Amino acid sequence: MKFLRFQYNNKPRYGFIEDDKIIEVSEKDYLTNNHKRLRECPVNVKILPPANPSKIICVGLNYRDHADELGMEIPEEPIIFLKPPSSIIGDRYPIIYPPMSREVDYEVELAVVISKEAKNVDREDAKNFIAGYTILNDVTARDLQRKDGQWTRSKSFDTFCPIGPWIETDIKPHELEISLHLNGEPRQHSNTRNMIFDVYQLVEFVSNIMTLKKGDIIATGTPPGVGPMKPGDEIEASIEDIGTLKNKVISHPIGT
Amino acid sequence: MKFLRFQYNNKPRYGFIEDDKIIEVSEKDYLTNNHKRLRECPVNVKILPPANPSKIICVGLNYRDHADELGMEIPEEPIIFLKPPSSIIGDRYPIIYPPMSREVDYEVELAVVISKEAKNVDREDAKNFIAGYTILNDVTARDLQRKDGQWTRSKSFDTFCPIGPWIETDIKPHELEISLHLNGEPRQHSNTRNMIFDVYQLVEFVSNIMTLKKGDIIATGTPPGVGPMKPGDEIEASIEDIGTLKNKVISHPIGT
Repeated sequence: MKFLRFQYNNKPRYGFIEDDKIIEVSEKDYLTNNHKRLRECPVNVKILPPANPSKIICVGLNYRDHADELGMEIPEEPIIFLKPPSSIIGDRYPIIYPPMSREVDYEVELAVVISKEAKNVDREDAKNFIAGYTILNDVTARDLQRKDGQWTRSKSFDTFCPIGPWIETDIKPHELEISLHLNGEPRQHSNTRNMIFDVYQLVEFVSNIMTLKKGDIIATGTPPGVGPMKPGDEIEASIEDIGTLKNKVISHPIGT
Repeated sequence: MKFLRFQYNNKPRYGFIEDDKIIEVSEKDYLTNNHKRLRECPVNVKILPPANPSKIICVGLNYRDHADELGMEIPEEPIIFLKPPSSIIGDRYPIIYPPMSREVDYEVELAVVISKEAKNVDREDAKNFIAGYTILNDVTARDLQRKDGQWTRSKSFDTFCPIGPWIETDIKPHELEISLHLNGEPRQHSNTRNMIFDVYQLVEFVSNIMTLKKGDIIATGTPPGVGPMKPGDEIEASIEDIGTLKNKVISHPIGT
């Protein structure tokens, strides 16, 4: 099932996709199994980011093939960092190239969306705290990442966290093709089975540090092939059984 | 003027302190100059964290005397990191020592509270985006900070961000004594005039990376004297003209 947020009659709404229609549900029913149908909406509505998280927790190096590519050792524990909620945009929104950087990279990732408050969850029980999965592009100003040592500035600019287009609930998270195309050319490619720490281990690890809330996101790391984008580029981040998240890069508008 | 959030008749409320009373105001009027008085409450209510930020941006090394103490060079730009909203607690709440760490440190800091949406703000204009100031203890699992290299895990545990007790609006942020006592013994001491990047420069720097929202917090770095705490310790973090933020350290309760 594909849950999504969308704009209709000038209001943000919640719903799911059924055949060629969007069925609206209440905010409370969103991402749950009980969804009272409020109305049918056309599918050509403006899509909003599918989640409104209180925090976005990302994992560094988490693909074996990416670690090999970089000649780096497999880490013994996940390395985490946070992206601010203000960095989120949805499908088809522009990624704005910030004046502070000269080197902005794409990083496609599988994103876990949390279904309810989660604290000290065991990996065996993690499934019960996951609402579904979406696609996330962990946009990174590589030059500032190198300069700062700490990764926060480089990953926190407005528009640096495209997510969407929707949240897929029925999915096997550890056997999905994952890829990214730049202007139609293949750039990143792997399969989620190459993750070093799987989705359930990550929910266990993160929820033993901080309490997760409904809608919070854990981004599970990027596969090989990361590289730079420039204004005018079109990025398509795809994950099997979810879909494709498309965003265009634009220059920073002067004076904003 | 001292603004605060508090619990009264089982509901979270907003208000300010006047003589020996708390005057309740609406959420909308909180931290503004227009505050319609809703009711008088006794001062012995339970105090809540005075802000409910969408993000907490912290600055690394930002006191000249602390840089000297560590033998480190003065950074040319601020190094920032984020703490998650789930780490916030208020005055008198316990700091819970997490089982994952063996070395948990205190770090007293002056915290800036943002008054309204702020994007690309110039330092000359920064004052117009600041609601007031509070005290923040940037609790840090020093062993995990060293191990990870990235600072996020070590600073993100639940209860690792005590703030409060209230937000002071009438204050000169760059001439305040700042100190921390552990079980009554002095541990940290400096004056906010020793900051490398002042409050207005930090608002400029951060708001050129990410859009700040009302209630967001910028923590401005810690002075010399950071050190470890253990269960049973009582921490008093004080800033001139604001007050004292008190928290006790407790062991992690088994099974929670």
